[in-house]
Amino acid sequence: MTENAVSLLSGGMDSSTVLAYSRLSYDVTAITFDYGQRHRKEIESSALLCRHFGVEQKVIRLDLRQIGGSSLTSEEKVSRRSFSDIGRGIPDTYVPSRNIIFLSIAAAYAETIGARTLFIGANSVDYSGYPDCRPEFFDSFQKALSLGTKIGNERGIVIKVPLQSMSKGDIVRLAEKLKVPLSLTWSCYNGREKACGECDSCQLRLKGFMDAGSIDPIRYERYPREYRAYLAEKNKKIR
Amino acid sequence: MTENAVSLLSGGMDSSTVLAYSRLSYDVTAITFDYGQRHRKEIESSALLCRHFGVEQKVIRLDLRQIGGSSLTSEEKVSRRSFSDIGRGIPDTYVPSRNIIFLSIAAAYAETIGARTLFIGANSVDYSGYPDCRPEFFDSFQKALSLGTKIGNERGIVIKVPLQSMSKGDIVRLAEKLKVPLSLTWSCYNGREKACGECDSCQLRLKGFMDAGSIDPIRYERYPREYRAYLAEKNKKIR
Repeated sequence: MTENAVSLLSGGMDSSTVLAYSRLSYDVTAITFDYGQRHRKEIESSALLCRHFGVEQKVIRLDLRQIGGSSLTSEEKVSRRSFSDIGRGIPDTYVPSRNIIFLSIAAAYAETIGARTLFIGANSVDYSGYPDCRPEFFDSFQKALSLGTKIGNERGIVIKVPLQSMSKGDIVRLAEKLKVPLSLTWSCYNGREKACGECDSCQLRLKGFMDAGSIDPIRYERYPREYRAYLAEKNKKIR
Repeated sequence: MTENAVSLLSGGMDSSTVLAYSRLSYDVTAITFDYGQRHRKEIESSALLCRHFGVEQKVIRLDLRQIGGSSLTSEEKVSRRSFSDIGRGIPDTYVPSRNIIFLSIAAAYAETIGARTLFIGANSVDYSGYPDCRPEFFDSFQKALSLGTKIGNERGIVIKVPLQSMSKGDIVRLAEKLKVPLSLTWSCYNGREKACGECDSCQLRLKGFMDAGSIDPIRYERYPREYRAYLAEKNKKIR
């Protein structure tokens, strides 16, 4: 019998790739948080992805606007940073303890379905500099969850972070290999009709496609200069 | 300037005592969770206690019934155990990862008010056997929170568990010393008009009063045999 696991799914490219990866070896339930994010479109994306993969989804409501402290859950404008600034310092989109809170709740839910393995799509190479994305945090949190839960006391909790040391380019390549329908994923912090192309998340995503030599299938309001140059170069080669 | 701290307050005897203790040295905000508990009366108690102490209160809604797995958040009957069985094994009132979830969210909120110190009224002497009440769990979780949060990276997170190694009798004595209005506190898992006197929480509480040689000021539907004998003995002495 395949072991149960839970996989945190935002609907973005990284967590969708992790979902595709985790279902190769586990009977996976996707856990998605409806946390008052301005980019609610990612919740719709997550549902489409679960349907695509035939994976059960559990959506948990926890309004993080009650806590505040982040431009992602407020009416504040998400600030624009250039490619080279991303990863320097902690940005205003940092939601205090978001991975901590999500993993805690995921661990609680996992326990109710007899799962001890939690997958998360965090990454500490091409990332936004959040402290709860780093390997030393996950190691430490895995220990704490193993001590603090009933199932953890019996069998230990395992937090799997398969993308931990992958670049965004590696992730795009893995997503393509695993046939993740990237056109269904949503990464933009601004939940408008098209991706903005300006927020950290859009820029990191497009950097991934450039590194992988691929083209992002989703639609953007505008591309960053670097990506426009990349597309022009690619078109030149095709001709 | 006094340092900020947050103190988890359920409205029960233990967390109320910790609130009274924490405010001696910190500028404290009480954090109370409205998590779909059947004993909602404790939320009213918590508000009265904050008013009594002149402490600011933040109530956070997170419906743990979405997660399930506990008789405390379901319509299931809370099972009755005798004095001697309490502490043996993990009871059906165990809410998966409750302290883990509450501390994670408290840490997020603490960060927004510049607090790095979290108080919690957990106890591992006269307790119900929950794994997330033990000292090794708190040590481990404190490390994880220090690594995973912005404020923790800068100054470290401290989880203070002042009642950790105190018996329920010690807690009653400390509560009386700190002039905690015990008549306002609510411990019973069944949120009826009077405390049931039968659930683990009522029994542990009454054991505390017996150990301290005091009398619980709140009203009960019925007392456990041991407490009835204790009251009879006390009355005999008075005469």
